[in-house]
Amino acid sequence: METVRVELGARAYPIHIGDGTLDVDALYRPHLRGGRVAIVSNAVVAPLYLERVKAALSRAGATGTVNVLVEDGEQAKSLASLERVIDAMLAGRIGRDGLVVALGGGVVGDLAGFAAAVYQRGIGFLQLPTTLLAQVDSSVGGKTAVNHARGKNMIGAFHQPRAVIADTGTLASLPARELRAGVAEVIKHGFALDVELAAWLEAGVERLLENDAQALGHAVRRSCELKAQVVAADEREAGQRALLNFGHTFGHAIEAGAGYGVWLHGEAVAAGMVLAAELSVRAGLLSRADAERLRRVVQRAGLPAAAPPLSADRYLELMAGDKKVAAGRMRYVVLKAIGHAVLREDLDERDVRAAIAAVTSPAPGAAASR
Amino acid sequence: METVRVELGARAYPIHIGDGTLDVDALYRPHLRGGRVAIVSNAVVAPLYLERVKAALSRAGATGTVNVLVEDGEQAKSLASLERVIDAMLAGRIGRDGLVVALGGGVVGDLAGFAAAVYQRGIGFLQLPTTLLAQVDSSVGGKTAVNHARGKNMIGAFHQPRAVIADTGTLASLPARELRAGVAEVIKHGFALDVELAAWLEAGVERLLENDAQALGHAVRRSCELKAQVVAADEREAGQRALLNFGHTFGHAIEAGAGYGVWLHGEAVAAGMVLAAELSVRAGLLSRADAERLRRVVQRAGLPAAAPPLSADRYLELMAGDKKVAAGRMRYVVLKAIGHAVLREDLDERDVRAAIAAVTSPAPGAAASR
Repeated sequence: METVRVELGARAYPIHIGDGTLDVDALYRPHLRGGRVAIVSNAVVAPLYLERVKAALSRAGATGTVNVLVEDGEQAKSLASLERVIDAMLAGRIGRDGLVVALGGGVVGDLAGFAAAVYQRGIGFLQLPTTLLAQVDSSVGGKTAVNHARGKNMIGAFHQPRAVIADTGTLASLPARELRAGVAEVIKHGFALDVELAAWLEAGVERLLENDAQALGHAVRRSCELKAQVVAADEREAGQRALLNFGHTFGHAIEAGAGYGVWLHGEAVAAGMVLAAELSVRAGLLSRADAERLRRVVQRAGLPAAAPPLSADRYLELMAGDKKVAAGRMRYVVLKAIGHAVLREDLDERDVRAAIAAVTSPAPGAAASR
Repeated sequence: METVRVELGARAYPIHIGDGTLDVDALYRPHLRGGRVAIVSNAVVAPLYLERVKAALSRAGATGTVNVLVEDGEQAKSLASLERVIDAMLAGRIGRDGLVVALGGGVVGDLAGFAAAVYQRGIGFLQLPTTLLAQVDSSVGGKTAVNHARGKNMIGAFHQPRAVIADTGTLASLPARELRAGVAEVIKHGFALDVELAAWLEAGVERLLENDAQALGHAVRRSCELKAQVVAADEREAGQRALLNFGHTFGHAIEAGAGYGVWLHGEAVAAGMVLAAELSVRAGLLSRADAERLRRVVQRAGLPAAAPPLSADRYLELMAGDKKVAAGRMRYVVLKAIGHAVLREDLDERDVRAAIAAVTSPAPGAAASR
């Protein structure tokens, strides 16, 4: 087991990474304050891991657990789901000294984390990510949210977990499409922040798809280290943390434009990164060769390198509703080099439109590659 | 105009108190970051003050305003109302640099503050309290929330406003019952925290009911000073801040037991304080004479000094669902002396039951006094 720390002063917390960490009761014990525990999961994940987690919590001294299962998929990130979770927690007499345990992927983590953030004005929670996407990205950093019909993650809170317990053994049971979606966020960390991780991916991204335990462990640990550094420096996304949104402004527009749940988040981010790299080239920031390196890794990972064939107007409209708009100007995360993302508010809309046209043109391919 | 500061480091903010402060554009200007403003109010308050606030915001440089009206009364503190507010904000293109302005009483402030807390993971907001209760209590301290069928304020956040603009001129138009409900929280501040304020109330609580501007100004300023000190010392209610819940554990049970909206919050707190004082006497902490002093002020303020005639079992059940339960034990805020509240977890349930029986017995009077 390896442990990465997110240094946030009084809110600092560990990320425990390794095969079998779900069963290690010592990892839960420091976070139980004598209260009851609400485990939030879904019908796909719970049959695989819920009993193991309950047993570990029991050994760690939990006085009682309440289980709340939500729908599988992005539709669970709704105010209606939040109300169901809160209702079950109240019925189960979870007090202010209680703990929420998010057992599942990014959707469960975002929803359960938000429930913990607002339940009785905030109680503690643990992230137990069981997908690659959640282990390399969404379980770390305290962003929690549900969606609104007008936009993704529009209702949420910054609420850091007390700990992340990332059991890499859970990745073996992950469907291939889910695994690929997680690889997209590893690619993001490499190409936005760390040229070495990018090169490592170029050297053998296929190992991740083949469920190579050692490669997955490396990808999770390195991603968590990178994300922990960024979050420690800029918890509330006043600056640097926005670089982690590389691929996400376009990606959110792709998800919304296609209808939530049609594209997986990671798939949309993959195509969004290709689009952002194309924009970087057209803005004169990145070489065509470097943009091609990103596109090739995306394609080798079995991820879509083309965006859905919506008009540029529609993309701009969808992006204008996204959170990343400051004072009416669109902010884009673009690449100056591989491993070096930057935030720009001064890009020419013509370049944005041209990039969209270029990356949406192979329309049938976009569908086929998924 | 007087200004009281809430000292919370990076989240410190001013409370501006005076007649006509709503119109002072200089009070809004520091909080506009170039973005748009969502004004949340209700159909009773908006016709009185909305145009004045919009004019002041416009003079202060706001680029545009969105108005959201919610229902009048406690039923507006719901997830359904929250969704309507968020929807209007998204439709109105409020960005992360936008501002929420809560124009109204405690209900509007709690709902609008919670909307600001969770909108795009948190944006700034101003409190413009227009009731005595909101000016002396709920607009200060950053507690925001909506209710759940299983309990009051169960879904919420600590989210401090950027400023409170308390225009005491708005109190002149307040219905007498609303004014009395606010006086209950002034009584709370005096009897829980400040023997001088308690004595001042005993010397002439009637001046507040007669809408004496000088007396109201004093009550607002002194209450804000007391609350600002407590909040600065214990923002998240780890200890001392819980003393501000004097009368509230019983009060919330009264509100829930009677059905939300039947009793005003301040009315329930008044009867709850009498009950807490009775418990203090029975627990051997407070003299009978001091409990009587509290009861007399409550009665002179035209507030209910008796609780609804529910059984002690029902009260205990309602209170067990309240937030103020730690590790399964009931915590009570009781008085050791006038102006000196303490938090106790070790009280004998028989004393609690006896106090409930004593304060609920004059059942017809409870109704008549309202």
